[in-house]
Amino acid sequence: MSMSRTSRTKERLVVIGGDAAGMSAASQARRLKGPAELEIVAFERGHFTSYSACGIPYWVGGDVAERDQLIARTPEEHRARGIGLRIRTEVTEIDAEGARVRSRDLASGAESWTSYDKLVIATGARPVRPELPGVDAPGVHGVQTLDDGQALLDTLAATRGRRAVVVGAGYIGVEMAEALINRGYEVTVVNRSKEPMATLDPDMGRLVHKAMEGLGITMVNDAEVTGLPTGDDGRVRAVATEDAEYPADVVVLGIGVRPETTLAQAAGLPLGEHHGLLTDLAMRVRGHENIWAGGDCVEVLDLVSGSERHIPLGTHANKHGQVIGANVGGGYATFPGVVGTAVSKVCDLEIARTGLREKDARRAGLQFEAVTVESTSRAGYYPGADPMTVKMLAERRTGRLLGVQIVGGEGAGKRVDIAAVALTAGMTVEQMTALDLGYAPPFSPVWDPILVAARKAVAAVRANGV
Amino acid sequence: MSMSRTSRTKERLVVIGGDAAGMSAASQARRLKGPAELEIVAFERGHFTSYSACGIPYWVGGDVAERDQLIARTPEEHRARGIGLRIRTEVTEIDAEGARVRSRDLASGAESWTSYDKLVIATGARPVRPELPGVDAPGVHGVQTLDDGQALLDTLAATRGRRAVVVGAGYIGVEMAEALINRGYEVTVVNRSKEPMATLDPDMGRLVHKAMEGLGITMVNDAEVTGLPTGDDGRVRAVATEDAEYPADVVVLGIGVRPETTLAQAAGLPLGEHHGLLTDLAMRVRGHENIWAGGDCVEVLDLVSGSERHIPLGTHANKHGQVIGANVGGGYATFPGVVGTAVSKVCDLEIARTGLREKDARRAGLQFEAVTVESTSRAGYYPGADPMTVKMLAERRTGRLLGVQIVGGEGAGKRVDIAAVALTAGMTVEQMTALDLGYAPPFSPVWDPILVAARKAVAAVRANGV
Repeated sequence: MSMSRTSRTKERLVVIGGDAAGMSAASQARRLKGPAELEIVAFERGHFTSYSACGIPYWVGGDVAERDQLIARTPEEHRARGIGLRIRTEVTEIDAEGARVRSRDLASGAESWTSYDKLVIATGARPVRPELPGVDAPGVHGVQTLDDGQALLDTLAATRGRRAVVVGAGYIGVEMAEALINRGYEVTVVNRSKEPMATLDPDMGRLVHKAMEGLGITMVNDAEVTGLPTGDDGRVRAVATEDAEYPADVVVLGIGVRPETTLAQAAGLPLGEHHGLLTDLAMRVRGHENIWAGGDCVEVLDLVSGSERHIPLGTHANKHGQVIGANVGGGYATFPGVVGTAVSKVCDLEIARTGLREKDARRAGLQFEAVTVESTSRAGYYPGADPMTVKMLAERRTGRLLGVQIVGGEGAGKRVDIAAVALTAGMTVEQMTALDLGYAPPFSPVWDPILVAARKAVAAVRANGV
Repeated sequence: MSMSRTSRTKERLVVIGGDAAGMSAASQARRLKGPAELEIVAFERGHFTSYSACGIPYWVGGDVAERDQLIARTPEEHRARGIGLRIRTEVTEIDAEGARVRSRDLASGAESWTSYDKLVIATGARPVRPELPGVDAPGVHGVQTLDDGQALLDTLAATRGRRAVVVGAGYIGVEMAEALINRGYEVTVVNRSKEPMATLDPDMGRLVHKAMEGLGITMVNDAEVTGLPTGDDGRVRAVATEDAEYPADVVVLGIGVRPETTLAQAAGLPLGEHHGLLTDLAMRVRGHENIWAGGDCVEVLDLVSGSERHIPLGTHANKHGQVIGANVGGGYATFPGVVGTAVSKVCDLEIARTGLREKDARRAGLQFEAVTVESTSRAGYYPGADPMTVKMLAERRTGRLLGVQIVGGEGAGKRVDIAAVALTAGMTVEQMTALDLGYAPPFSPVWDPILVAARKAVAAVRANGV
């Protein structure tokens, strides 16, 4: 079957990728233009649409009972809303000059071309899968897709051993460590960085390290994995580093992801230094009038450093989809960029960051002061006042806020939003000291920890005011 | 005894009031200038200094075990830091022309004059105590000071009956309702407004009303208290309104406070329409070169409406004290104003607001769109995803954020800080839709409820864009 433009009287929008960015774009476009004006064809190579990959660790850990709870909208629901969705259909080529895409039905193997007036690329990211001996052995799992999550759960159900090794200690790594602790496993985390959570500065990562050890997790930092030795049955039996072997009944890879831009690259579309698609502020692929891209396959402008970053995160993907949908639907919207906010937790420890770490600031050519304060998430006398540590970076001389990192107990993590808004507004730390933040003893000390950090940052900027 | 300026070679700072604003000012001034340069004399008519009045409901409710946990710094600690503190000593007159204050030792009754080079007025607020029959009867309590809290606890310990009536349903009223519920009382709240929490719009107050009823609290709204009938023993036995009598073994008055500016008024210092002292941005009393004022006795500039308000809140008082201390100590700092942020809770229900309510906006001459959204504090599939309602006001045409109100479960309240920073920065609701807020399933839906509200507000502003 082939659909060509000549046979059509109305516009056709083609969407590649059925998760957050792609289906948000399709849905928003559909809201703005009905089926009489706009045909929408969306391709998804997997079985599922519009699901929360971020929720997989909580499903594996048992906090979320059913896979389907992670699905915001099923293929049937999308179709009922007038989106021509084809699941298990993989796009294999983008012909940008001919304004068409080639797709393959994964069940039948049949291929066809579909022409488009407007194209949305939302191909997401693919997990980094190191070329290690044993990486494909049974018992080794990624956690990128719902199918991955189900496969891991099946392995856990079938495995009698209770030793789990997580490779990588970024967001996915620490969340999977929590999930496996919750499942009753003995958990070892093997991590190539000096400290876990390399999205924090090492001094803050060290707090996470100590807290994870306090939860009974064995932390192996600064360690390069050299292989995944298998047993006589072919299953993984350990994670090997240069120095040691860590016995494993199951191995979870949480090493991170890269933009899935194979198709885009083959089509000659512009990629950035992180291999993500480059777009303008309306999420239109640079230099291509009728192609948009969003979600985990694009690079985003970091408003603090002024350079592009790759930040695979559902909240950005949803925003991109909205912006793209508005623009392809005849409206107008832009995505101005990010400040790099992220929040996570491992059991009761909350971890958050926004803006630049020390090394990001240096890379951006910025000179700065860095301060760290210890406070509590509630008034010190109030029950559940957990310790929280706030690190704050401010630009030298100007005192402009550059970044905040938080590690602490309940209520600590979402405080990062205060700094995220302040960064967006370009506030100085001096301006921040006057912020009118919510205060009551169950919610905050009388000086919110963010204000305490801002005051210390002001003093540091003043002390080195030359 | 009398201290006159002629006998001194160094500057003298006199502080009236030993709680947050006064003692923060004294402490900050002391940090900047040692005893050889600056003498500091502080007068406090009570027994305590630097305590958290905001914590009293939690002490009464049993969340905080000991009174002394609410005391951040004792008189002895202040004295050890070089502050000449006189407790149980009431200032009875300010002679602004003569640059001196008259004080009375409450134990001996002895009076004396103390001259000053610089004066800080931090006389706080006094509770509104309506002139009602029975208001001074045993069993009727305010909760303004630590002494009030102790007196209430003594009454609760001595009273066999379990019926408590709280008069007033503002922050103190709802917090005291929670405290008494926690103590096992049958609680009735009698409130003159249409709904509790009149610091919210009535539609949001209604959510608080329903939630409090769900906690077993009897809510009597729109009711004017006419008297506090007493029994044969002289103790309060009920709260009477025009329509009914509510039997009471104990009555707590939570009707609010007014600036305590009797001394300032007698001295001819400038007061505003809320009877609070008027200062410049450095917290200097307007027209008086050597007098500063801060805390609950001053009016503050509302940055959203552009007019003065009286907001008695420990977090402002502490900031005022810091600013005053910097300025009287030879440094420089300002308090630019507030946006009116407040957060509270009643059991598991969190209540927050910032910026303008509908009636505030009208009073300020602003036209606006108001939208309300229902969402959850975490991803919908994550355990503990509690409902939360967000109301947002945006200025007509410009789309500038004017205010946010939140009622919801755990994690809802402190989200108001996002709006507080956005208000301070003068953001539009359209700008807010792109905010890079922390997202992970345990912390937020993929669209934070604040972003959902902002998107709806954008649509409302656009729809009425004329």
